[in-house]
Amino acid sequence: MKTLIINAVILTMNDSFDLFNKGYLAVRGENIEAVGPMEQCPDMESFDEVVDAEGGILVPGFVNTHTHIGMVPFRGLGEDMVGRLNRFLIPLEKKQMTQFLAKASAKYAIAEMQLSGITSFFDMYYFEERLAETCVEMGERAVLAETVIESTIDSYKPYGGIELAEEFIGRWKGKSSLVTPSIAPHAPYSNTEESLRKSREIADRFDVPYMIHLAEMDFEVSAIREKYDMTPVEYLDSIGFLGENLTAAHCIFINSRDAEILGKHNVKVAHCVVANTKSAKGISPVRLMQENNVCVGLGTDGPSSGNTLDMFTVMKATALAQKTFLRDRSAYTSREILKMATIDGARALGLQKIAGSLEPGKKADLTLVETKSINMYPLYDPYAALVYQAGSHNVETVYVNGNRIVENKNLLRYSVKEIKDELEKESLSFRYEALKMQNK
Amino acid sequence: MKTLIINAVILTMNDSFDLFNKGYLAVRGENIEAVGPMEQCPDMESFDEVVDAEGGILVPGFVNTHTHIGMVPFRGLGEDMVGRLNRFLIPLEKKQMTQFLAKASAKYAIAEMQLSGITSFFDMYYFEERLAETCVEMGERAVLAETVIESTIDSYKPYGGIELAEEFIGRWKGKSSLVTPSIAPHAPYSNTEESLRKSREIADRFDVPYMIHLAEMDFEVSAIREKYDMTPVEYLDSIGFLGENLTAAHCIFINSRDAEILGKHNVKVAHCVVANTKSAKGISPVRLMQENNVCVGLGTDGPSSGNTLDMFTVMKATALAQKTFLRDRSAYTSREILKMATIDGARALGLQKIAGSLEPGKKADLTLVETKSINMYPLYDPYAALVYQAGSHNVETVYVNGNRIVENKNLLRYSVKEIKDELEKESLSFRYEALKMQNK
Repeated sequence: MKTLIINAVILTMNDSFDLFNKGYLAVRGENIEAVGPMEQCPDMESFDEVVDAEGGILVPGFVNTHTHIGMVPFRGLGEDMVGRLNRFLIPLEKKQMTQFLAKASAKYAIAEMQLSGITSFFDMYYFEERLAETCVEMGERAVLAETVIESTIDSYKPYGGIELAEEFIGRWKGKSSLVTPSIAPHAPYSNTEESLRKSREIADRFDVPYMIHLAEMDFEVSAIREKYDMTPVEYLDSIGFLGENLTAAHCIFINSRDAEILGKHNVKVAHCVVANTKSAKGISPVRLMQENNVCVGLGTDGPSSGNTLDMFTVMKATALAQKTFLRDRSAYTSREILKMATIDGARALGLQKIAGSLEPGKKADLTLVETKSINMYPLYDPYAALVYQAGSHNVETVYVNGNRIVENKNLLRYSVKEIKDELEKESLSFRYEALKMQNK
Repeated sequence: MKTLIINAVILTMNDSFDLFNKGYLAVRGENIEAVGPMEQCPDMESFDEVVDAEGGILVPGFVNTHTHIGMVPFRGLGEDMVGRLNRFLIPLEKKQMTQFLAKASAKYAIAEMQLSGITSFFDMYYFEERLAETCVEMGERAVLAETVIESTIDSYKPYGGIELAEEFIGRWKGKSSLVTPSIAPHAPYSNTEESLRKSREIADRFDVPYMIHLAEMDFEVSAIREKYDMTPVEYLDSIGFLGENLTAAHCIFINSRDAEILGKHNVKVAHCVVANTKSAKGISPVRLMQENNVCVGLGTDGPSSGNTLDMFTVMKATALAQKTFLRDRSAYTSREILKMATIDGARALGLQKIAGSLEPGKKADLTLVETKSINMYPLYDPYAALVYQAGSHNVETVYVNGNRIVENKNLLRYSVKEIKDELEKESLSFRYEALKMQNK
């Protein structure tokens, strides 16, 4: 199958940020075959299909570096409340979350992400085996990390997640071109040193990415200070946890020394500004980390933390927060922001060789943003239009791994209504408990 | 004409925040006749039309307290650049802005606002007479303020805006139920004391709202400190400028004493968080002002400052910024945010008696947000869903003054393509200059 996309504003996000104001992109099978200006467009006759972008903006599919796709049923519950996590989310999760509900939620979340142009994501939740099946079924690329924590909802054993992750990685490593299995100890404060060491050992042994929540909570910082007289980053460094395959989510409470340590180990960071500011935790010092050669991608966090599963909201919020934090309107140009949402995100997923930019030989993970809607005019600077004007509703066409997934703003193979009905059916008892909690 | 809306989640935003999980609202002519739970729904036979909201959320039309609708052609130009205002916007405005372009831009901006559920707005620009005609033509409610500044693009005289405003207010006061004419001296640093006094005098004489940019710029604060040894607020107080009909935009650099002064005079504030943070100016101390009984509404600012003309982006950004600023996740609940975007906004426009809440006797300015799109599920708390999940693309139906303006997410009487073509035609020469500037 050969597809040719023509008449697009193409932001390649390659190392030299090549941009074609009127460009073409050729896909052969799973791969990008060529990209360039329309003047060099190959003969259309040799393609199975030609898609006229009509001036839309073609970018690498967005990479969501941190989410929890099993958590759609929690979205909007207990908002604006202190102690929300322990008061609503954790008790409800323990009591009501099942592999069936997690899977129905995952399907819903993947649909929502695909519709907003996200072509790969890094997940951290439970029942990841079910979520892996869902990714393959829906044609979405992902790194899926089974969570490690003492009390696990998908195992009756303490730290049962270690065993589950090991089995999951063993079964899924190399199995699908879409899914990379992974392991995610929950956080430095919620895991034993032993479980952290074992998690890293498993990631090393299988050579897969691993993930953790890091320097996210103020109580995490004070607890680790009290126990070890260290910062969370120093603590993880001291036990040999940090490595280049690690993607650390949040990293809000980071000082210069921490940033240096993260950079030295080539740790990747998943920056989740909407979730971090909505919960009043603070603004991550992204510039400081980048200055220490830490690669920072962007994440939505789970649907109950960030509430939307799209990168437009996140890109805009990142730019606004960082400019204000640095008191510099020229800081974080739209191009830098888009870089974080694409190629830097791909690095955080260990997928930089196959995704994150529009270059021949890479997999065809593509997002086409239309520029006909009222919010997309005028168009002086396509980067700025994406960051400051566009929304998920402007995403018209999406390809993952060479397959068209979204067409004319709709899923090609699925109905949103059916996916919602499925989730609704699976979450009846969850919803009953949730409403009881809310109205208490 | 009698219209009945049924099966809506209704957030009345009245003083007691009455909410109907399954409610009806009856419109007769321009006015809301009744609102209540479905059990009390009147006989449908007696209505000319019945609209089934199918579980959508019905709210008072959003009130945008600060914008510059003539500035759509500037959107996206010179983004992320230091000195953008003086380097791009002002020279281009002086050279290329005409009444015809301002009018075409206004039509575009009003269409964009209507499609996102904004039913009234406070504008500050030039050629307001043309913009007033456009509001009436398009059925939008507005307070329109002619700008007063030394060098005015719509008058050849220094401070010619004073005369223009006086004539404009004289002609439009009481002329249309939709348009309230107004006057807006640009800012304390860019106006003479005399022009500020005259502006207030005109607002008083005609009993209309007036507007100013206040405490927005760091150089404004230092210039006024140097010249008068006062804050911008103290300075305006000292010359008798402050009053209850004043809506002050931005108010970023406000200390406790300033907040007290603003409260004492019952000044209203138009808080524009997206524009303020995008330009790295800072975060306004909204809570401090509200604690001093200052009414704070929300604004998008102009399309080149905030980039989107919708209140969803603004509501979310306000919540995120204020929670972070106050280090309190429970601060600014979704209900408080929606209050600022509706009834408090109406107060800032002097329209609280006729708009801003869903109450019998008020004008029917209504926005219906559908809950079927993928981002709107699940729905535990309609306030939170509006602030954290919804976007402009979820706006399904909009009424202004009892007239249906938006239906099925489309303008009822206009085509976006035609409005865009009109603006494109009027902005040919503007665009040529703008691109020259950008590429220099």
